Amino acid sequence: MRGDSASTISEARLSRPSAGRLSLYLRHLEALIGEGGAKVSSVQLGQALGVSDAQVRKDLATLGNLGHPGVGYRPQELIGAIRQALGLNREWSVALVGVGNLARALLRYRGFQQQGFRIVALFDADPAKVGQCIDGLEIHSPDQMSSVIARTGAELGLLAVPSETAQTVAEGLVAARIRGILNFAPAVLRLPESVKLVSVDLAAQLEQLAFLVQMVGNESRALNTR
Amino acid sequence: MRGDSASTISEARLSRPSAGRLSLYLRHLEALIGEGGAKVSSVQLGQALGVSDAQVRKDLATLGNLGHPGVGYRPQELIGAIRQALGLNREWSVALVGVGNLARALLRYRGFQQQGFRIVALFDADPAKVGQCIDGLEIHSPDQMSSVIARTGAELGLLAVPSETAQTVAEGLVAARIRGILNFAPAVLRLPESVKLVSVDLAAQLEQLAFLVQMVGNESRALNTR
Repeated sequence: MRGDSASTISEARLSRPSAGRLSLYLRHLEALIGEGGAKVSSVQLGQALGVSDAQVRKDLATLGNLGHPGVGYRPQELIGAIRQALGLNREWSVALVGVGNLARALLRYRGFQQQGFRIVALFDADPAKVGQCIDGLEIHSPDQMSSVIARTGAELGLLAVPSETAQTVAEGLVAARIRGILNFAPAVLRLPESVKLVSVDLAAQLEQLAFLVQMVGNESRALNTR
Repeated sequence: MRGDSASTISEARLSRPSAGRLSLYLRHLEALIGEGGAKVSSVQLGQALGVSDAQVRKDLATLGNLGHPGVGYRPQELIGAIRQALGLNREWSVALVGVGNLARALLRYRGFQQQGFRIVALFDADPAKVGQCIDGLEIHSPDQMSSVIARTGAELGLLAVPSETAQTVAEGLVAARIRGILNFAPAVLRLPESVKLVSVDLAAQLEQLAFLVQMVGNESRALNTR
């Protein structure tokens, strides 16, 4: 294995939670660069993101030997290494299925474009929407999925359809040889092993918030009754 | 501490990642109930959500002694215990700031209502939108935030504004005594310790997907060159 590049080795070692944190470091480093920051320490990164500095150093060590004694990390250098490890040193073409309000928000979400995600194809089952254009993109019927996805080279799919149709639409994307799906429907999807799935459960995020808020309430009540 | 209820004790012990998994168990159990399931094992739950059955048992043990020998868990019983632990055995009133496409999608997102989250107040800085109604809710100007939030009893805030204004708007919500914020803007927010924050970074979710898809590509290339 000695002939392999360092990046391939570190990618293989990168765990899913560690990759999640790398995304957060990336976002913070980009903000730091915007503010003109020329160096950053593991303590600063940890404090900004609520993880220990030991965890930060462990995560960043998977990228290679990037710490500079007496300096810390150089943000621009870290950004390059993180983007390579996450597979963001290239552009990803994305197909979006279900052109409702969420899809319109996603189409204009600048965070996607900034990170190299480009929406190249739109699909909707509603005949009234098929043929319309949004931001220069034509809305296609789902039965054109295979040909449009092959033509546009979309590798990732955004699923913004209601729960009831999510599984069927996801299977259509799989048949059209999409490699990964970001699912916004509050539904559990079953996909073949070869197609990757990330689900954004918005209610679960709100539940996390309610849980944290309730914890604060319980703690202060516990303090008051002592 | 003997006089405390079991739920208070378990809430205090519940870690954030464990709470996140409880949300996922909850979603899966609700789907299971919908399909008429009367029992479920830690192995089944683990397989459905991609965690080990040991982790499932550990997470569910924080809720009390709910496993039945020879049966496993009873979904309805688990749902009740999880909802109580997460603070979902009540309704939460929510204020939504920034009435664009994302907000319209969130307003109609059934997952929120199903879990007891009710959007009760809308705010937008655009004078052309102030005074309009969506789904029976009037859009208010941000300078009415304190009075409207006090009147409606909103405790949680959904932030669906552009990155540039996110920090200012969040500070307005804090001043209006909101207890927690779910942030959709791709921006790092600084809030007082007493106000809880959960950020939904949609680009980070797409980055996770790209990372997973890229990993598959690397693995199959590595296999091919052996």
